[in-house]
Amino acid sequence: MKCAVGVDFGTLSGRAVIVDVTNGKELAAAVHEYTNGVIDEVLPGTELRLDPDWALQDPNDYVEVFKNAIPAVLKESGVDPANVIGVGIDFTACTMLPTRADGTPLCFLKEWRDNPHSWVKLWKHHAAQPEANQLNAIARQAGFGKILARYGGKISSEWFFPKAWQILNEAPDVYSAADRMLEAADWVVWQLTGVETRNTCTAGYKAMWSKTEGFPPAAFFKALDPRLENIVDEKMKRDLLPLGARAGGITEQAAQWTGLKAGTAVAVANVDAHVSVPAATVTESGRMVMIMGTSICHMVIGENEEIVPGMCGVVMDGIIPDKPGFEAGQSCVGDHFRWFTETCVPETYEKEARQRRISIHQLLEEKAASQKPGASGLLGLDWWNGNRSVLVDVDLTGMMLGMTLLTKPEEIYRALIEATAYGTRLIVETFQKNNVPIRELVATGGLPDRNKLLMQIYADVTGLPIYIPEATQIGAVGSAMHGAVAAGSAAGGYDSIVDASLKMARLREESYQPIAENKVVYDTLFAEYVTLHDYFGRGENDVMKRLKALKICQA
Amino acid sequence: MKCAVGVDFGTLSGRAVIVDVTNGKELAAAVHEYTNGVIDEVLPGTELRLDPDWALQDPNDYVEVFKNAIPAVLKESGVDPANVIGVGIDFTACTMLPTRADGTPLCFLKEWRDNPHSWVKLWKHHAAQPEANQLNAIARQAGFGKILARYGGKISSEWFFPKAWQILNEAPDVYSAADRMLEAADWVVWQLTGVETRNTCTAGYKAMWSKTEGFPPAAFFKALDPRLENIVDEKMKRDLLPLGARAGGITEQAAQWTGLKAGTAVAVANVDAHVSVPAATVTESGRMVMIMGTSICHMVIGENEEIVPGMCGVVMDGIIPDKPGFEAGQSCVGDHFRWFTETCVPETYEKEARQRRISIHQLLEEKAASQKPGASGLLGLDWWNGNRSVLVDVDLTGMMLGMTLLTKPEEIYRALIEATAYGTRLIVETFQKNNVPIRELVATGGLPDRNKLLMQIYADVTGLPIYIPEATQIGAVGSAMHGAVAAGSAAGGYDSIVDASLKMARLREESYQPIAENKVVYDTLFAEYVTLHDYFGRGENDVMKRLKALKICQA
Repeated sequence: MKCAVGVDFGTLSGRAVIVDVTNGKELAAAVHEYTNGVIDEVLPGTELRLDPDWALQDPNDYVEVFKNAIPAVLKESGVDPANVIGVGIDFTACTMLPTRADGTPLCFLKEWRDNPHSWVKLWKHHAAQPEANQLNAIARQAGFGKILARYGGKISSEWFFPKAWQILNEAPDVYSAADRMLEAADWVVWQLTGVETRNTCTAGYKAMWSKTEGFPPAAFFKALDPRLENIVDEKMKRDLLPLGARAGGITEQAAQWTGLKAGTAVAVANVDAHVSVPAATVTESGRMVMIMGTSICHMVIGENEEIVPGMCGVVMDGIIPDKPGFEAGQSCVGDHFRWFTETCVPETYEKEARQRRISIHQLLEEKAASQKPGASGLLGLDWWNGNRSVLVDVDLTGMMLGMTLLTKPEEIYRALIEATAYGTRLIVETFQKNNVPIRELVATGGLPDRNKLLMQIYADVTGLPIYIPEATQIGAVGSAMHGAVAAGSAAGGYDSIVDASLKMARLREESYQPIAENKVVYDTLFAEYVTLHDYFGRGENDVMKRLKALKICQA
Repeated sequence: MKCAVGVDFGTLSGRAVIVDVTNGKELAAAVHEYTNGVIDEVLPGTELRLDPDWALQDPNDYVEVFKNAIPAVLKESGVDPANVIGVGIDFTACTMLPTRADGTPLCFLKEWRDNPHSWVKLWKHHAAQPEANQLNAIARQAGFGKILARYGGKISSEWFFPKAWQILNEAPDVYSAADRMLEAADWVVWQLTGVETRNTCTAGYKAMWSKTEGFPPAAFFKALDPRLENIVDEKMKRDLLPLGARAGGITEQAAQWTGLKAGTAVAVANVDAHVSVPAATVTESGRMVMIMGTSICHMVIGENEEIVPGMCGVVMDGIIPDKPGFEAGQSCVGDHFRWFTETCVPETYEKEARQRRISIHQLLEEKAASQKPGASGLLGLDWWNGNRSVLVDVDLTGMMLGMTLLTKPEEIYRALIEATAYGTRLIVETFQKNNVPIRELVATGGLPDRNKLLMQIYADVTGLPIYIPEATQIGAVGSAMHGAVAAGSAAGGYDSIVDASLKMARLREESYQPIAENKVVYDTLFAEYVTLHDYFGRGENDVMKRLKALKICQA
């Protein structure tokens, strides 16, 4: 039996799986928590307090995942390392760090360790917002709007160049000392293989690279800041490897860390959401993958590189080689419900849940499930954390209407679920209107197994069937699939991710089919949602932004 | 020392006070709960279940108040009944019943007792909505719109003629058997005095009477239903007594019930909110009295009978003789906060309140008080129970916007308070724009003593100072003042309610003055409120009504 190992680097921990290459069966899984986790208060080893928008990580925590989680899955599965043909990894992005030319993170060096800019900037580090704002403004003024259009009209502060620019602005000495700036995704592959590579996914979605245009020209970077003019040539790499390509083989040292054989194929780095798409059986157009957790990532493969308003990005080769990969997002889904249960659920409900030994979410789901669509009279806008797609506006806020003196908590809870479903439908329709077909949904992430009511509402609201992939560790399994592709068919793997997906990924038999009578009611409610979405979100009444500005003054 | 007794008939109980006529000092108070309370489930003595919109009462409960509460205050105060110069009463309205010519309620008679239409229809009996809708439609079609204009454009289902018409429609035999249909207010005065009288207040505010036009003409009633053509002459009375007039003297029987001397002057009946105005020191134009509880009643005395959009009514002689009395209303104030604490406050807050031995309202008030205006970013529309003034629309519902993942319960609580304050400001400004001056507010009812934050917010939002009357039992004290006027100056009382108010009513020293820096922020927020108020309330987006209609279909 040939196997592959996948490692999924999350926000708080890394997770390894080992899978059977012939059928994708998960033989063992292990999680290793990062010792330093998310560094957002005090820089380790110092008394330096970080500003509220900061979020750092320690690259050593990633190496510890290799040293602990891979040996654990080998041991648990009993697989002979000689039968492991390939390794793949996926990572959060953009999670980036400055290193020396040999890959040593600057934060490993005594002279830089006390400077927070030498550490890894985690995806949710938001302190580069001024740089992002400036970048967007300059890009529009200086005639680079076409680049922005590929990203829904706006580059996020979470992405590569705002973060790199923040280092230059606030710690020019760190910037100078960095021979490289790169995604942690690429950095961990470098640690396994000793080979410095770059992948098309993070370059395309986070660093403005396009297959036809490459990175933005030096003139663009010069317009931002003359010192950035040559950042690509000075700190990055122009030659990228396609997803599934072999980055190199496991080094002797990495073999010692992991227990794998030296020389085992390692795939080029990838991103958590993107690696999940083939693991969810999707390698062609027509089916949207939704990775549903605190937020939703919507991943779609297309035929042509269309410009879709409000998407997070369209990247040729970004998910599957030779196809455009589209990404869209909803900023607040699971977070919404957690806010609600923590902030708005009365004591009587908590008591009932405890007595019945169920979670408060289960209780609310049960109570909400007995209601018909429209029976609460409530309608919400799901903007508690702003709106990513399709409005790309962080200054929008939540709205709920229809409350009466008889409105119950489970009705508000259901209205919040419905609001996120309307948000998804708007994204689906925006793709469809822009020549990116979507006929089915495939849902993965934490939510689908936790809330059946939510899944049925999404099917009813969108009018599309929803399928669930079998893989439970979808990111890690997707990475293992890419490892099998890096190994190639000659070694018992596959020559393309399409082949790997066909053999290694499956859907569950269980699915959610739209209920026609609910769909009719939701069509009506969705029309109301769209009217309010446009009224509050497209400039007719910018009250949310004015209130937010006032709030900042009065805080 | 000359004294007067006031009896305030509420929804669940009657409350008596005895006051010193020279200075209004409350010497004793007593409450008597109604045995049958609000009859809204099963008709007493039967198994007949009432429909959800029904709300009845038992007239015997009113007599029991006289028999219990008046002796109690005489005993507690030690006042010699010979020194009680007058009695006044106030009542909820329109609370009406059918009786025989001698005043015997039909529900006291065996033959009618099992018919719910023979009982008292309480103010909040809402089952006459079809009749109210028809009345409003016919009045507009048949050219009686001018009458409606005095009532904000719409007659409520709570008022006299819809209720009488419902009896005719659903129980024509009860309608025929009723020699009289009258307000319970007038009925209790009849029980005390043996004299059948009617007052200008309930006639004006609840039965479409006007000092210059009288009741609507027979043609109007005929247009509703030919059988109603002569309802005024057949079941009612055209000669009304002004407020404070002597209806009669205590009968021998009533003397036995109450312990008062036979012949003691009894004032004509009055209404709770209206009797509170002179008790709150207001007998002239320029000051609005707000009776703040589950809802707010706004009472204003004017100089001319202006038509003010959305008011509940303007009645010459309706509050003070020879002056127009204006009434407006907000349907949902205290109810709002109760809904919130029961539905939306998390267990951690309940625990904190218990540990600190304070109420949940106190805890929320304390937490909300530390916020600055505008600091939450929230804005609401206070329509959880529809909108009375100025939109007169029961189909509007609540709205809240500005929520983020950091929004806290106390911020929503404060936003609900603010929303009701914006509603009050809109009412104040509507009066002002229609030539009814308002320069100060006088607040009474349950809320002012319970929530100082709320009072300060109302002062800050309206930009008007708010004063609080000294009287704690404002309705009963106002009734006692009218009793002193019925007695007249010759007996040691007063010849007008203006004189009585001057001597017997006082304001506390404590007041709420607007804070200029808060007012500036609230001016901005109020402008946003008005925009949303008009968008959702004046037809630009009738989403609330469409959702309510859908809700009824899907319930």
